[in-house]
Amino acid sequence: MTRPTPRSGAAGTTVDELRTALASVGPLDAAAMAAAQRHLDRLTKPPGSLGRLEALAVTLAGITSRVDAPVDRRAIVLAAGDHGVARNGVSAYPAEVTAQMVANFVAGGAAVNTLARAVGARLLVVDVGVAGPIPGLDPAGTGKGGPLIQARVRAGTGDMTVEPAMTRAEAVAAVDVGRRIVTGLRTDGIDLLAVGEMGIGNTTAASALAAVFTGAGVEAVTGRGTGLDDEGRRRKIDAIERALALHAPSPADPIGALSAVGGLEIAALVGVIVEAVLARIPVVLDGFITGAAALVATAIEPSIAPRLIAGHRSAEPGHAIVLEHLGLRPILELDLRLGEGSGAALAMAIIAAAVAVRDGMATFDDAGVAGPA
Amino acid sequence: MTRPTPRSGAAGTTVDELRTALASVGPLDAAAMAAAQRHLDRLTKPPGSLGRLEALAVTLAGITSRVDAPVDRRAIVLAAGDHGVARNGVSAYPAEVTAQMVANFVAGGAAVNTLARAVGARLLVVDVGVAGPIPGLDPAGTGKGGPLIQARVRAGTGDMTVEPAMTRAEAVAAVDVGRRIVTGLRTDGIDLLAVGEMGIGNTTAASALAAVFTGAGVEAVTGRGTGLDDEGRRRKIDAIERALALHAPSPADPIGALSAVGGLEIAALVGVIVEAVLARIPVVLDGFITGAAALVATAIEPSIAPRLIAGHRSAEPGHAIVLEHLGLRPILELDLRLGEGSGAALAMAIIAAAVAVRDGMATFDDAGVAGPA
Repeated sequence: MTRPTPRSGAAGTTVDELRTALASVGPLDAAAMAAAQRHLDRLTKPPGSLGRLEALAVTLAGITSRVDAPVDRRAIVLAAGDHGVARNGVSAYPAEVTAQMVANFVAGGAAVNTLARAVGARLLVVDVGVAGPIPGLDPAGTGKGGPLIQARVRAGTGDMTVEPAMTRAEAVAAVDVGRRIVTGLRTDGIDLLAVGEMGIGNTTAASALAAVFTGAGVEAVTGRGTGLDDEGRRRKIDAIERALALHAPSPADPIGALSAVGGLEIAALVGVIVEAVLARIPVVLDGFITGAAALVATAIEPSIAPRLIAGHRSAEPGHAIVLEHLGLRPILELDLRLGEGSGAALAMAIIAAAVAVRDGMATFDDAGVAGPA
Repeated sequence: MTRPTPRSGAAGTTVDELRTALASVGPLDAAAMAAAQRHLDRLTKPPGSLGRLEALAVTLAGITSRVDAPVDRRAIVLAAGDHGVARNGVSAYPAEVTAQMVANFVAGGAAVNTLARAVGARLLVVDVGVAGPIPGLDPAGTGKGGPLIQARVRAGTGDMTVEPAMTRAEAVAAVDVGRRIVTGLRTDGIDLLAVGEMGIGNTTAASALAAVFTGAGVEAVTGRGTGLDDEGRRRKIDAIERALALHAPSPADPIGALSAVGGLEIAALVGVIVEAVLARIPVVLDGFITGAAALVATAIEPSIAPRLIAGHRSAEPGHAIVLEHLGLRPILELDLRLGEGSGAALAMAIIAAAVAVRDGMATFDDAGVAGPA
């Protein structure tokens, strides 16, 4: 059984302290970004001709204050949790699938396992709120897919249509789980992080959070999730509208909104994101649910948004609205709607390519190539 | 000095024979595609949730008639040639840069070298029509970046504004160079091909071909290339309009149009594309210039278009028009405008990920995961 080691200072702070700490990280490092662009302009290609690869190399410099920011040590943190709201028929799959898929992640058989291998990233699966037992789990909590970090704050959220998803204390505890995982990764050394999630019913929570933080209508931010039909989507919209009417969550109280209509895995990812920002580690968002976690994190302190990297834009219609609100342009648009960190993992390959170009190319001087006429 | 080995039957056919051969390849294999989709639907993810990764796996099956089509042995064929039209001030760079960049490719210092390494692809650089000597070339014609295939049909094209870019015989010879390279690769075994190019002035040729084959106006398909200002782009449009007025190339005569306003490297890539199609090898297009080569190939036989994979959509404005005409949706949109095969190389990483998912995931049955409720 693997547990994150609590470390002093890593977690347990109040939201006000967290906001102050995040604000102190400040904007992207403009000097490092300018230096990175100067370096890219010396390489044997027309200036700017590598488009977003160049922009990514510049952003990495802005986040890390290093022109040569490495991305070799990669990890994906996949947080899993169950959702009480699932009992309202808001998902195409039964709730047991959360635990079954956690077992699949640990065994190495899920999409994110193959993609993590393809991009050379470690996968850390964290059970922060699965409802039932993880079937067939090895006593050591490990498998071919990676370790399971057993840090269950509670066994699934409450049904947001009749009660808060969780208490504020539980939300903060789940955030701290995420923060501690990043703190633990820093002990080994980590250059590039990605976030992923699993939780039957969690597009419902993400849609509710998206409505709260972007101000968009529930209809606009609610899609078919893993495959709802029209009637199922209707039920989902209705459940979200009832939950928002019951709790009246406010964007000015991010932890309150997270507690009322969020999810335990979403809370853990808020923690991963904020701790990565504090540590100046580039963090790659996946799809709609990780986008909802980013909404909560940026509601705590809006200035951190440019420090997040949008891995892809999913087919879930609310995701474009979330990315727009965050001011982030996705690297990939591959119509993915799986979650797990699958799109973020793929984006890591593009980020790695950007760094390969940055570090591997000859300069005009070295190669004896003429510049513009 | 490396030369492609001529092989009987691989080249030297007439355009009519080529059209007949290409037509006989037929449509994508619908049975293999259906089998590939059935396989994907058994994997532990909601049906279709991996979006374009699934579509790519299905397309590979359609091209190769194999559900388990491998993509392990990867190569990028980068064809280089000079353009007489460059003397009209249509490029931001002097013409010598073509030869200098060929030297850079062989030495391993260009963007495509780093990207080829990142995606595990061999790079084959072919001089099919560079105007001057390749500076600093090793007598063996090899370097850290890969071999240089020395197959110069002529030392740069003629200036299309006053004469045909090349004769029909030269165009056919350059096509045959490309075909023979693919034939040679097949001897070693090749699973996935990409095309790239280098040639100062070649966006002018590509724009002229795009106007001929798509029917779009010259303005619409003419961009800034490697970095022209407004006046330079004006000169470029004017040069293309004069060339089209002089030669009146017809889309019904693809080799005629290629000879009149094309390029030697474009002709070689036509050969690479058609030979890959004949051999049922998936071939990944790069940007605007390789798209122009695809326009010529599909003008010879339109039914082959679905057998081509669009690696990315470049920032060059005509590229979207070319892809629309080809009916191809690009995998990536990263604002690249470099050429060399850079976008195709990046797309290979996504294709490899699609295959990793196809081959590496557990099925619902194996993993004990429940299906939809």
